[in-house]
Amino acid sequence: METISTVKSFGGTQGVYRHPSASTGTSMTFAVYVPPQVETGARLPVVTWLSGLTCSHANMMEKGGYQRACAELGLILVAPDTSPRGPQVADDGAFGLGQGAGFYLNATQEPWRRHYRMSDYVTKELPGVVAAHFASDLTRQGLFGHSMGGHGALTLALGNPGIWRSVSAFAPIVAPRRVPWGQKAFSAYLGPDEAVWRKDDAVALIEDGARLPELLIDQGGADPFLERELRPELLVQACAKAGIPIELRTQAGYDHSYYFIASFIEDHLRWHAQRLA
Amino acid sequence: METISTVKSFGGTQGVYRHPSASTGTSMTFAVYVPPQVETGARLPVVTWLSGLTCSHANMMEKGGYQRACAELGLILVAPDTSPRGPQVADDGAFGLGQGAGFYLNATQEPWRRHYRMSDYVTKELPGVVAAHFASDLTRQGLFGHSMGGHGALTLALGNPGIWRSVSAFAPIVAPRRVPWGQKAFSAYLGPDEAVWRKDDAVALIEDGARLPELLIDQGGADPFLERELRPELLVQACAKAGIPIELRTQAGYDHSYYFIASFIEDHLRWHAQRLA
Repeated sequence: METISTVKSFGGTQGVYRHPSASTGTSMTFAVYVPPQVETGARLPVVTWLSGLTCSHANMMEKGGYQRACAELGLILVAPDTSPRGPQVADDGAFGLGQGAGFYLNATQEPWRRHYRMSDYVTKELPGVVAAHFASDLTRQGLFGHSMGGHGALTLALGNPGIWRSVSAFAPIVAPRRVPWGQKAFSAYLGPDEAVWRKDDAVALIEDGARLPELLIDQGGADPFLERELRPELLVQACAKAGIPIELRTQAGYDHSYYFIASFIEDHLRWHAQRLA
Repeated sequence: METISTVKSFGGTQGVYRHPSASTGTSMTFAVYVPPQVETGARLPVVTWLSGLTCSHANMMEKGGYQRACAELGLILVAPDTSPRGPQVADDGAFGLGQGAGFYLNATQEPWRRHYRMSDYVTKELPGVVAAHFASDLTRQGLFGHSMGGHGALTLALGNPGIWRSVSAFAPIVAPRRVPWGQKAFSAYLGPDEAVWRKDDAVALIEDGARLPELLIDQGGADPFLERELRPELLVQACAKAGIPIELRTQAGYDHSYYFIASFIEDHLRWHAQRLA
């Protein structure tokens, strides 16, 4: 693992690191905030943040404003990239497909299948990399994300029980099978058979029996993608039917930006910290 | 005044606006955060943030993390650009001169003198624009800034008593006459006669009799520009001699970035809010 940069922030260290990933076959860049409590020698709980379309490891790091609350609560925050990248990695000029748009799944179709293995990366590889280099307690992990990253948090946690003890999301895509962004990406990455899409779709996973202990969702009421792409009511319906406690907070006037995320990030971090204590 | 964008943040509104400036003869872009207390109908105190070299109105808005504390304290925060901009405005390919590097002075030399009038802009024009469009109380104004913007906060407040009731800075350039960044910019903007530089140099202004009621300065201990460009000890010496109370806090391990600023912005906002109450 290579250190790209470190900077002091709220008494802790905000770093950017790069490592060769066996999952994606590329080098992957990720951001880690280590709070000042690391100086006690304790292994600390970890929350992993999955970002949305077009983002890298940097958006949350620069605009999320999480460092203050993580420093107070003693949480390590990890923010991976949203896809493999590089000249050897397939890409697409359009929005929502290719580099910056990995959708946290393992692609099965050409030309994506070789490198686009973000499900494996986040689930199987990244926690070990974090544990090897930072004083983290992998029995106390939380997962959250925004938009495409909220989709990733929901589907990875539903599909891989036992890794993450707390799961939340900001403005997640909850039913990619049923919205344009998801249909475009899944058609390319997973092929035309919609039956195989279900294991990467939060609502379908719940319908098919996957469970989480509880969910916290914040959704901006003025989010321009709310009705067409996000459709949180589908998640609420699925959770109600499955008996999964869900708190969906519609925040009046907020949009889809990191200003929305920053406004409520402290709430989510406290929620995770309580469950990872 | 034209509204470029508005977004809800911590219950208030983060906006970006543009207006034709009589001072600079260009259109000027600035950011304003209006906290939720505006809904009470009260006119609110204003703090104006002056950014550093290469910055625009956006750096502080995106990375400063001030919105949470401003929302709690009921402060309007205004962040202007750091120079006039546009194809008709003189520029220089080098770092520290031209667009993005206005140094908050009125240039007297060609080709700068026509548009580079940031002292007039911040002192005489911007407060009126803010008062005309936002529920602000111009009898309760504070000024602060970072690096070149810390220089601007100090020199504009020292040179224009009665406008700003509270003044603070992060890693300010305190004696531009005596450091490379300042010498390069002042030679170009103000010409070779160093005697005329004194009215735009905080230490010289204090030596020449200008006063402030008190000062709060935060300086990163690991700031790479500390010894060569910033030299806060010169300000402390001048303040001691002049009887100006100054608190210089050297924050061990912090650098010159917005991660440093964000870590201590709440302290500064509370300090200003107390003095603007």
